[in-house]
Amino acid sequence: MLTLEQRVYYEDTDAGGVVYHSQYLNFMERARTEWLRSLGFSQHVLREDLQVLFVVHRIEIAYKKPARLDDVLQIQTEITKIGHGSMKCQQVIRRGDTLLIDATVNIACVHAETFKPIGIPPRIKLALERS
Amino acid sequence: MLTLEQRVYYEDTDAGGVVYHSQYLNFMERARTEWLRSLGFSQHVLREDLQVLFVVHRIEIAYKKPARLDDVLQIQTEITKIGHGSMKCQQVIRRGDTLLIDATVNIACVHAETFKPIGIPPRIKLALERS
Amino acid sequence: MLTLEQRVYYEDTDAGGVVYHSQYLNFMERARTEWLRSLGFSQHVLREDLQVLFVVHRIEIAYKKPARLDDVLQIQTEITKIGHGSMKCQQVIRRGDTLLIDATVNIACVHAETFKPIGIPPRIKLALERS
Amino acid sequence: MLTLEQRVYYEDTDAGGVVYHSQYLNFMERARTEWLRSLGFSQHVLREDLQVLFVVHRIEIAYKKPARLDDVLQIQTEITKIGHGSMKCQQVIRRGDTLLIDATVNIACVHAETFKPIGIPPRIKLALERS
Repeated sequence: MLTLEQRVYYEDTDAGGVVYHSQYLNFMERARTEWLRSLGFSQHVLREDLQVLFVVHRIEIAYKKPARLDDVLQIQTEITKIGHGSMKCQQVIRRGDTLLIDATVNIACVHAETFKPIGIPPRIKLALERS
Repeated sequence: MLTLEQRVYYEDTDAGGVVYHSQYLNFMERARTEWLRSLGFSQHVLREDLQVLFVVHRIEIAYKKPARLDDVLQIQTEITKIGHGSMKCQQVIRRGDTLLIDATVNIACVHAETFKPIGIPPRIKLALERS
Repeated sequence: MLTLEQRVYYEDTDAGGVVYHSQYLNFMERARTEWLRSLGFSQHVLREDLQVLFVVHRIEIAYKKPARLDDVLQIQTEITKIGHGSMKCQQVIRRGDTLLIDATVNIACVHAETFKPIGIPPRIKLALERS
Repeated sequence: MLTLEQRVYYEDTDAGGVVYHSQYLNFMERARTEWLRSLGFSQHVLREDLQVLFVVHRIEIAYKKPARLDDVLQIQTEITKIGHGSMKCQQVIRRGDTLLIDATVNIACVHAETFKPIGIPPRIKLALERS
């Protein structure tokens, strides 16, 4: 499990005065990226050395409360299932004690050029299982 | 049911060479906005005259195939359920015959200032039921 | 000269209630892309067939008045100078009679893989000069 | 002068494999926001307590070299001129020793509701002059 903190800037908000709803997916992807980096797998290593991409296959996201300009958000990532060529993450976004977003993200492992599904490389799978 | 056509520009894509996954939510919101406009309810009318906002409450989105630069996408919006203060939309994104995105979007009606849940104003509900 | 019309959606706005300032650059790039497409050069043709990219080298942009949610904007593109490996565009964004944005955009022609400056391919240069 | 470090994520890049050109304006606004916060003026304080917004009035931006996925960027903000109701910032973006972006940003102080130009509040002006 890893928690990333991110500030809300004007670019993240909309004329309703709150964070635009698709922007939470960006925050969640930043958190997944930092979580993979903490295990030794930067996007560069994934793409250039291992020739894989992790692509989002399915998202279920519940918007509980809105975030606003200047908020500091905690984005938490937890892996809940690892399969042969896919994994499932539970991601929540909080502002202090307040739950804002609750999401389940299914990720598929694909070849970096062909986008065809492939198995998760063993050294990544091992690192994920140990995390 | 309404179908909106949108072109994919560089801004919509990422370094993987495909449309960035959160961008489809933006395409879907454009389509919902144009669908409400076609019923006589622009965002301006909703917010200034009726003092309501339709906010996304929950999304389930399945990514079937990626869209790419220069693609022309057809975004289809269909309302499948109307409740007292919420509604459910089915939205699909196609490129010609190819299904790219299949999503269910739950929308809640809230007060434009307080963001508190309120009932859908009768004249909107009527227009939605007739659509 | 080509004028592209674009609607302002929630995604384009910020918590100040107006279009976020970097978003106008996206509108301008959509207009340049459609202008090149109208001359027969889609991004696909540029990149795959001619192996060139047109990249932004310098922008001077003056923000005259803000655009707001639901506005329909007219984005006008005019080429003012064509050099060996670069060109200069004048782009303005209007909402009806009101001038919102006035910008000068310098574009460089680069190789699609190496990003090294190259001369504008003759058939593009010819089409640009005739436009 | 303040330097903000920001990581490049997939959301910031485009199908050309580099950071999308308008995204640098977002990075620069994050840096200006953090610089104002370091002086005691969060966006919330500016808007709610002092009823002002700092809006971008003019930008001149030169794109020297592209940033790529996973890069860590240093965004430097320096104020070069303070007037009655406006100021000028010099902002550069570097990746280590490499200069990527060189920009001059003119900022105007406007009323948070009316968007009419007003003088910079004295306590902000004082803090800016001392910074």
